Amino acid sequence: MNVMRFKKLALIGCGLIGGSFALALKKAACVEHVSGTSASRASCEAALSLGVIDEIVGSSQAAVAGADLVLIAVPVFSIETVLADIAPHLSQQALVMDVGSSKSMVAEKAKLALGEQFPSFVPAHPIAGKEQHGVRHAEASLFENHKTILTPTSETRPELITLAKSVWELTGSKVSIMSPAEHDQALAAISHLPHLIAFAAVNALHSQPQRELFLDMAGPGFRDFSRIAASSPEVWLDIFLSNKEDLLSQLQAFKLALSAFEERLQCDDSASITQLIDQASQVRKHWRLNG
Amino acid sequence: MNVMRFKKLALIGCGLIGGSFALALKKAACVEHVSGTSASRASCEAALSLGVIDEIVGSSQAAVAGADLVLIAVPVFSIETVLADIAPHLSQQALVMDVGSSKSMVAEKAKLALGEQFPSFVPAHPIAGKEQHGVRHAEASLFENHKTILTPTSETRPELITLAKSVWELTGSKVSIMSPAEHDQALAAISHLPHLIAFAAVNALHSQPQRELFLDMAGPGFRDFSRIAASSPEVWLDIFLSNKEDLLSQLQAFKLALSAFEERLQCDDSASITQLIDQASQVRKHWRLNG
Repeated sequence: MNVMRFKKLALIGCGLIGGSFALALKKAACVEHVSGTSASRASCEAALSLGVIDEIVGSSQAAVAGADLVLIAVPVFSIETVLADIAPHLSQQALVMDVGSSKSMVAEKAKLALGEQFPSFVPAHPIAGKEQHGVRHAEASLFENHKTILTPTSETRPELITLAKSVWELTGSKVSIMSPAEHDQALAAISHLPHLIAFAAVNALHSQPQRELFLDMAGPGFRDFSRIAASSPEVWLDIFLSNKEDLLSQLQAFKLALSAFEERLQCDDSASITQLIDQASQVRKHWRLNG
Repeated sequence: MNVMRFKKLALIGCGLIGGSFALALKKAACVEHVSGTSASRASCEAALSLGVIDEIVGSSQAAVAGADLVLIAVPVFSIETVLADIAPHLSQQALVMDVGSSKSMVAEKAKLALGEQFPSFVPAHPIAGKEQHGVRHAEASLFENHKTILTPTSETRPELITLAKSVWELTGSKVSIMSPAEHDQALAAISHLPHLIAFAAVNALHSQPQRELFLDMAGPGFRDFSRIAASSPEVWLDIFLSNKEDLLSQLQAFKLALSAFEERLQCDDSASITQLIDQASQVRKHWRLNG
């Protein structure tokens, strides 16, 4: 199509990511109507009153009826149920995407749940977010200059991969395509493990009797380091469990790097500690956030 | 004194922290002249050309001659040497401070190095900084709304504690007073351990063959989490070694918290993982950066 225009977006899950996606598409004037449904009635109502969706429907089946674009923006372990529910009601030409943070499990489950409609499914992961969750924090610019990863399989319809790429580019995102396995390994390394570490670091502080004094003295370094520890348990339980093997393997690599410091500290090995710090400092100084 | 005014600040160490201190005092018009010296000639020259100091001197002894305010802004393990060098040349009424990030060892060494002049020494730690180091990044506002901790001992002259408090308040800092041991334990928890973790996390990424792809995909969560890993090896080697026992003890608490996640992940214990994430998320969400 010359100008991309969808008649109906079915938004299943009206949270931060789903809401921001709908707003971005509305801003780009490429969707006529948004039907929304969510596990929480309050989220639906907030989404409607904020203009994120145009209509609340009572089920995902109702949402996808007549929709040419379907976005499933629910926690990872709920995606399978949603896909099974909507499979018999999907239009032949609909592009179906999720936004889950782990992809191998989603792709496997989607194949089972969607059956013949599996080629219409383009697993997607926009690498964007913020501390606050919920549709009230949704914004059309959330994906701007952030990466979105698409992880199609060999069965995915090529023209839908192209269409999915165009849709995410329209939100301002830079789109990459890779296999679900590559995605999951990389995400375990650069996102899932850092979240696990940040949660554990905050819990370690909280486990000590002087926690109030400690937290009161914490400065901007701690603020940034621990920001991701404020993330939502609903979302992160699913991510951790659905990408468990990659996460545990990244955790081993981290524990090795941590032991390297611990052993060298214990024997005051200044030269080696300097090398370890210098390596991290050089790597981090030369890294730039890539859109 | 009614209006606080120093005739001469001896700035020993012209880096980010020392330079920002001099600029803040100049901005407040409470210092007439700043004599600077630094291990690096280039830093001295940059400091002079940026107006951070008014004069370069060749030694810390020369810097403190006639100075009524002395700031030692060098890495922790260099403080002792500087104190021993300047001790015979200090004015009776001079207020002497350091800015080291660990305080028990500094206080001990200072007592030996300064002898009779030890009561003039008020150990200080401004909890401020940024990714970039060096005097070129110094700014008068660096300490604004950040905490500065003073850790005087029972021998410190009370009027100098009061004076030190006023000086740091003049830079915009919120001043707290505690013992060196309390300071070191808290800082190990909220700053030294997070730095160690961030260094180790970046090194773990760097140890893997896919490091380029991983780093290329990293998003804003990783950016903030790893910001402190760009810190300088010169500064952090000294901090780690000078506060080794507290740091290792905080590391044990963190490893316990990390194992809690690992064990529960291995057996898919959703309820416990949710609890662990929820605790961290609640603690971090309710925490606010305190000036």
